Amino acid sequence: MEKLSQILGDKAFTQNIADIEPWLTDWRGRYTGTTLALLSPATTQQVSEIVKICAEHKLPIVPQGGNSGMVGGATPDKSGRSVLLSLRRMNKFISADPQSGAIKCEAGVILQHLHEHAEKIGRRFPLTLGGKGSATIGGLISTNAGGTQVLRHGTMRALVDGIEFVLPDGSIFNGMAPLKKDNRGYDIRHLILGAEGSLGIVTGATLRTVPALIDRCVLWCGTDSTQKAYDLLMMIDAMAGPQLEGFEIMPQSAISAVMDHIPAMKSPLDGEYPWHILIEFVRDQSDMTSPNDLGEKIFEKAFDAGLISNATLSQNEQHVLDFWTIRDSISEAERKKGPAVQHDISVPVVDMPRFIDQAGAAVQQKFAGCLPLSFGHLGDGNVHFHVKAPPGVDAESWYNGDAHAISDFVYDMVEEFGGSISAEHGIGQVKSDCLRRLSSPARMTMLRAIKTAIDPDNIMNPGKLIS
Amino acid sequence: MEKLSQILGDKAFTQNIADIEPWLTDWRGRYTGTTLALLSPATTQQVSEIVKICAEHKLPIVPQGGNSGMVGGATPDKSGRSVLLSLRRMNKFISADPQSGAIKCEAGVILQHLHEHAEKIGRRFPLTLGGKGSATIGGLISTNAGGTQVLRHGTMRALVDGIEFVLPDGSIFNGMAPLKKDNRGYDIRHLILGAEGSLGIVTGATLRTVPALIDRCVLWCGTDSTQKAYDLLMMIDAMAGPQLEGFEIMPQSAISAVMDHIPAMKSPLDGEYPWHILIEFVRDQSDMTSPNDLGEKIFEKAFDAGLISNATLSQNEQHVLDFWTIRDSISEAERKKGPAVQHDISVPVVDMPRFIDQAGAAVQQKFAGCLPLSFGHLGDGNVHFHVKAPPGVDAESWYNGDAHAISDFVYDMVEEFGGSISAEHGIGQVKSDCLRRLSSPARMTMLRAIKTAIDPDNIMNPGKLIS
Repeated sequence: MEKLSQILGDKAFTQNIADIEPWLTDWRGRYTGTTLALLSPATTQQVSEIVKICAEHKLPIVPQGGNSGMVGGATPDKSGRSVLLSLRRMNKFISADPQSGAIKCEAGVILQHLHEHAEKIGRRFPLTLGGKGSATIGGLISTNAGGTQVLRHGTMRALVDGIEFVLPDGSIFNGMAPLKKDNRGYDIRHLILGAEGSLGIVTGATLRTVPALIDRCVLWCGTDSTQKAYDLLMMIDAMAGPQLEGFEIMPQSAISAVMDHIPAMKSPLDGEYPWHILIEFVRDQSDMTSPNDLGEKIFEKAFDAGLISNATLSQNEQHVLDFWTIRDSISEAERKKGPAVQHDISVPVVDMPRFIDQAGAAVQQKFAGCLPLSFGHLGDGNVHFHVKAPPGVDAESWYNGDAHAISDFVYDMVEEFGGSISAEHGIGQVKSDCLRRLSSPARMTMLRAIKTAIDPDNIMNPGKLIS
Repeated sequence: MEKLSQILGDKAFTQNIADIEPWLTDWRGRYTGTTLALLSPATTQQVSEIVKICAEHKLPIVPQGGNSGMVGGATPDKSGRSVLLSLRRMNKFISADPQSGAIKCEAGVILQHLHEHAEKIGRRFPLTLGGKGSATIGGLISTNAGGTQVLRHGTMRALVDGIEFVLPDGSIFNGMAPLKKDNRGYDIRHLILGAEGSLGIVTGATLRTVPALIDRCVLWCGTDSTQKAYDLLMMIDAMAGPQLEGFEIMPQSAISAVMDHIPAMKSPLDGEYPWHILIEFVRDQSDMTSPNDLGEKIFEKAFDAGLISNATLSQNEQHVLDFWTIRDSISEAERKKGPAVQHDISVPVVDMPRFIDQAGAAVQQKFAGCLPLSFGHLGDGNVHFHVKAPPGVDAESWYNGDAHAISDFVYDMVEEFGGSISAEHGIGQVKSDCLRRLSSPARMTMLRAIKTAIDPDNIMNPGKLIS
């Protein structure tokens, strides 16, 4: 501790409980841990020196960005044996090239600041999510974050062109140069992306941006079935290709819940429909079709093809914002309706209609009184599959009992579909057991071999992802 | 050998020299090895069984696809201690979905057959290269192959949505489901992509295709400088975005060499220009601008901006083919001009003009009489940097002497630019020493740790990539 404190100075090394406490509980409030000290380095060099000392003493390190993760991946355990390494002070922009759009920054930069910085150079960073006011670039990289624009622009993996990180022995890997082609052996950047801090500490990145939006519009549709929603997605993909940026599916019950939750909000469509679909069209090249014209054309064609029962097109940016507010309020609205267990899962896009229908029916049959709810990124083959508790149950005992059995049941079905038990949130502490239970021996062999080889003393975020 | 022969049967197991010989020398004729036997399994199960036996006896395995690699990565060494594992019999298509465009196939499928198969379902597999008649999907995956369409569609890495491979212990990793989002820990697919068979044997893949082309056109420009070429690229990227599919740069000397080589071919432009640029525009969505209109508009704007001195637009598909023939004949035409040492390198796109100019001048200054020649994928930050021997030298003694010093000099410069000594060909045997010499300790630590962990007995393509 003395050596660490010497490297960092008084401001950046603290063992004061009041300073540390806000960072010991994860965002969802599921986990609380303790730590020996909170370290807040200001440079990659300092991170390197810290890690060298920790390596020497086999002292576990828990790296943390904005502490807005969904799986407890940045929360220390209760042993109190680890140090908490905050990257939040490393929040500088290094460079930004308006022509190529490349932005280099430190790992502690907050997503919203990146959005603003990109705007300043006439560009857009096309990844956003609820926690954008606190989530850091390092955290987004370590969890390979997703969001609502993945359909066109991919997850964080597709937007990181360069990376810098500190290995468990304290050496610095400088891969910040944005190389479009690089075949020097195993792809280290892709290995660190999504590694949840278990192989090293991300300290910087070179990010890709896209041209600023010229305009956008949202087509909101009502339809009968998940299969029709999928067929609509395929039709639009063929017609609009690079101008299709979002495709979100929501059941009527979720829309009704949001209307109860925000009384001032009006449902985009009159009447009720088994499924609602939010489709966003954008224009970011002057030669592209107007999003509004595209929306109208697709509206007509989809109606003629019998894929939708009704639809409405946003008339201005306020409509667009309102439509997205409805989509983004589902989780909160549903939370007010009572206890539910949530699953962030994916299957191949083509199989998603069948998964939603079959998994929903199976859950209802097996767990009497439970109500399944699927909503989200149909275009990515990723829905949030919630299962609501039967009315009137005691929340705590349900969470400790049936909820686990329901999750196992849902994850088993995901596995049968060749899907993933973690689409965008990661494994962290929440899904570590589940990963072990459901992964093939070949996958576990690979994961364990990599972890053991790169972090032989298990000092990098131990207990997360793979234990 | 007896056990292996039992698994494979007579047809698929051979120790007959005449059958084996064609596969013992690499495509460029640089390496020749020997082997205990040629194994040609027909199924993933057979590959798994073979590998289990080899693992038991610590018998090295050299996997081979079409044997058209550029770095000797699929050629056994001279020790004769290894078996050669050919994937060519595993050439079946498993499924093809016209709607989503996903094609599942075995690793031995030949690239050209994949092109044809995609066409049959109204789609296009947007990666092509000179060896398409022999290169296999497994080889393309293992080398993360590139080509001339990377600018828009990425390398093989961006086109592989699912993968199946056999680990060094013989277990099978089934990751064939095409998941757009999957955060179950370290990304195994990206680790195997570009691993050159050193971590396991790729047996199958799920590939992404794009809509079939409606039409295309080529704009051929003459310009003064590499910087103007870069500025033109940025201008076009902002105007044409997803319709820009190729941007290739070629010096006048290369064009003249091609004209000498193919006397019937006419240079697209009258007169000579320091640099020629081939720009391809495509349309694969009905809503897109006509490639011809785009070409004309950009022609005018580039001319007005002083970025080009002259240009011509293809008037029909035959022109397009002729223009590409010129580009694709450079290597062959240059080979006839005398000995040269070639470097497949990349730097950040923004730095490429500076690299071409500075590296060219430095080579000329240091190695009297040598002529540098850069051509290729400017849009990917990847050129083929050739250095031609002084006139009249003895080829063999030059290759064994100066050529090595020149390569070291070029690679040192690439390293100074933060670039890659292997943009698209891989490391194989050719660049293994150079990788060790130039990589940072952090990179070598990572590469070695991964290799040792996953293939502890070093039976997977030993001596390639990392020794």
